[in-house]
Amino acid sequence: MLATVLRWLLLASITGAIVGTGVSLFLLVLIFLSEHTAHISLWTQMALLPLAGILNGLLLHYGYREPGSYARDSVISAIHLRLGAMSHKTILIKPVAALITLTLGGSAGKEGPCSHIGGTLASWFGKLVRLDPEMQKRIVACGVSAGFASVFGTPLAGAIYGIEMLVIGRVRHDFIFPAVIAAITAFEVGKYWGLTYDHFPVNISSDFSSSLAIRITLIGILCGLVSWLFIELLDRIRYAFVALQRRFKIWQPLMPFIGGLVLAALILVIPVDYLGLSLPLMEDALHGKDVVFWGFVWKSLLVAITLGSGFYGGIVTPQFVIGAMAGSAFASLLGVSPALGAAVGMVAVVAAASNTPIAAVLMGFELFGSSAGPYFATACVTAYIVVGHRSVYSGQLLGYSKS
Amino acid sequence: MLATVLRWLLLASITGAIVGTGVSLFLLVLIFLSEHTAHISLWTQMALLPLAGILNGLLLHYGYREPGSYARDSVISAIHLRLGAMSHKTILIKPVAALITLTLGGSAGKEGPCSHIGGTLASWFGKLVRLDPEMQKRIVACGVSAGFASVFGTPLAGAIYGIEMLVIGRVRHDFIFPAVIAAITAFEVGKYWGLTYDHFPVNISSDFSSSLAIRITLIGILCGLVSWLFIELLDRIRYAFVALQRRFKIWQPLMPFIGGLVLAALILVIPVDYLGLSLPLMEDALHGKDVVFWGFVWKSLLVAITLGSGFYGGIVTPQFVIGAMAGSAFASLLGVSPALGAAVGMVAVVAAASNTPIAAVLMGFELFGSSAGPYFATACVTAYIVVGHRSVYSGQLLGYSKS
Repeated sequence: MLATVLRWLLLASITGAIVGTGVSLFLLVLIFLSEHTAHISLWTQMALLPLAGILNGLLLHYGYREPGSYARDSVISAIHLRLGAMSHKTILIKPVAALITLTLGGSAGKEGPCSHIGGTLASWFGKLVRLDPEMQKRIVACGVSAGFASVFGTPLAGAIYGIEMLVIGRVRHDFIFPAVIAAITAFEVGKYWGLTYDHFPVNISSDFSSSLAIRITLIGILCGLVSWLFIELLDRIRYAFVALQRRFKIWQPLMPFIGGLVLAALILVIPVDYLGLSLPLMEDALHGKDVVFWGFVWKSLLVAITLGSGFYGGIVTPQFVIGAMAGSAFASLLGVSPALGAAVGMVAVVAAASNTPIAAVLMGFELFGSSAGPYFATACVTAYIVVGHRSVYSGQLLGYSKS
Repeated sequence: MLATVLRWLLLASITGAIVGTGVSLFLLVLIFLSEHTAHISLWTQMALLPLAGILNGLLLHYGYREPGSYARDSVISAIHLRLGAMSHKTILIKPVAALITLTLGGSAGKEGPCSHIGGTLASWFGKLVRLDPEMQKRIVACGVSAGFASVFGTPLAGAIYGIEMLVIGRVRHDFIFPAVIAAITAFEVGKYWGLTYDHFPVNISSDFSSSLAIRITLIGILCGLVSWLFIELLDRIRYAFVALQRRFKIWQPLMPFIGGLVLAALILVIPVDYLGLSLPLMEDALHGKDVVFWGFVWKSLLVAITLGSGFYGGIVTPQFVIGAMAGSAFASLLGVSPALGAAVGMVAVVAAASNTPIAAVLMGFELFGSSAGPYFATACVTAYIVVGHRSVYSGQLLGYSKS
């Protein structure tokens, strides 16, 4: 077993360093570009959204020439269906598409391209050192973990998320060692390249109270329902766009253009804060500021239109925003501190929408400290059950039934 | 799924409250009795050890009339082999045996009887409300989690430990919701009954350093080897006692008596601090005080003789003591702060010897705070791989190979 340790220490730290560098490059470009599109007029924003759509459509259509290969180019299906093989030629397509989406106003996340970069670089490195198929799967999972770890600055949650997202209801411990080592390495490499991460300490000074525990359980149930709504919106809007395209035989790359037009129309009523990553909304909620009660619905809707119409982007960052806003809103109804509610809601929505309760609890510890641990855990496991077997990841396998 | 949530909220909180009360009663009696045997002379202690042995031998022999049923009466085999059925008639035998072992000087842990109480009470409650077999397994796991949570004051680590210990290499998420609810309830009920828990905040003020990370990885490797040694000692000494008994056809209840004689002889050279729970040794290590370098070997040896000769007692508390002492000793060799080394060693030995890396990392967060999280995780996953497929629990199934 010592040989296993030494081999994977080496493989995982190299993977972590490569992925940390790749992801940092992507994130630094994203930060640079976002600064240029931060203060534009509403009319410019309305014009940019369909432009972002058509650029995404063209890029994904001509980048992935084979029809359907875009959808298949995911880390989950690479591990489950293709023995950890990912196409290296297409490594840049998704990150570039995500840059277009996020900087021009599409409402989505930044972790999708990072886990894609992580998985692809790890797959390339695995092929280079000629790993056997089982090891190749493991190194890809390890690259995905490293990608998550460096994007959010939560190394352990990232490591476990990368493993837990693969299958509903199971964590494979044989993936843990490489994932943890790669995730910590990538996180540190990211800091070396200049990435900074925010933490939001939550201090529960008072003792445990059963009344608070019941209210937190209620927030967990509500956040499970919010995740359900988010997943349903994503599925139905995606289906509606597919149906529209088939009914009128619309040229595929035009679909996100149409999505962009819809978004452009919607921002006449929904504030532009809900476009892009919307991290300031999440930060306000986590700092205990007042949030718009139905903000989580606006964010869910815009993300569902963005991703459902065919823009490329991540699907986890929106869960943070939706969860923090929903948690804060429900907390104000139930007489819970809004900052605690936001923190609890954020991890609960991740636990439910991604089916990753353990990673979500660890994320709670890493972002908010350990004093509210039992509350995080209660809300996460509750939301995780309430959402049922729905998932934002269609490729996720079902390991064990939840009920 | 909402029905599942409500049903298990109710079932798990009742289970947690029952188990928390049962475990508290056991622990309060243990504290009361231990105060009476804390300051006795070496000669009295030497006389008490064989007495404790024969009492344990008689109790287990006549308590479990059917030969072999003692060994089969474990929560792990109840879940894997007997659909969550545990004998309710024998609920008191193991706790009473553990009280005799621990108060009269046997070197063992206190969590074994607590998880036994938890599993048995939960099994009884499950039968009372007529759960179907699959739910019955789940409620027993839930009782075990509650038992662990209230004994160490680490509700989340306890919850996950109770699930993770069942199978090597897998966590069943369908057990998580009931386990977390029951564990938090039992923990709070334990505090209500007057139990107190120590926490040992470790503050890593400095930034992550790769030199420290390498040294922590080394501590992880060494702690994996320490766990290996502990498991080997347990197995070999148990085997030696069985061989001795068969060779000379010794009456079964006399075996722990012989074990007691061996322990009595050993305390002429090994300090009596290593008898009983030895928590002061662990606390010294966690507070950064100097520890005896080979202390972890003494503790491993005495525990192996105690449990291997047929005393009944827990097997996790010793992992805490052994891990904290070993971690502190290796830290002093490697120039790491001894308190950090002790904390890291403690969670690493639990991760390895019990095959529960996720529970061990959560325990690190709960006992020591979140600032050293990446170090805990590195050491835990490293030790977990190094120990291979060995385990202190012979009934643990192998879910996934580690290498």
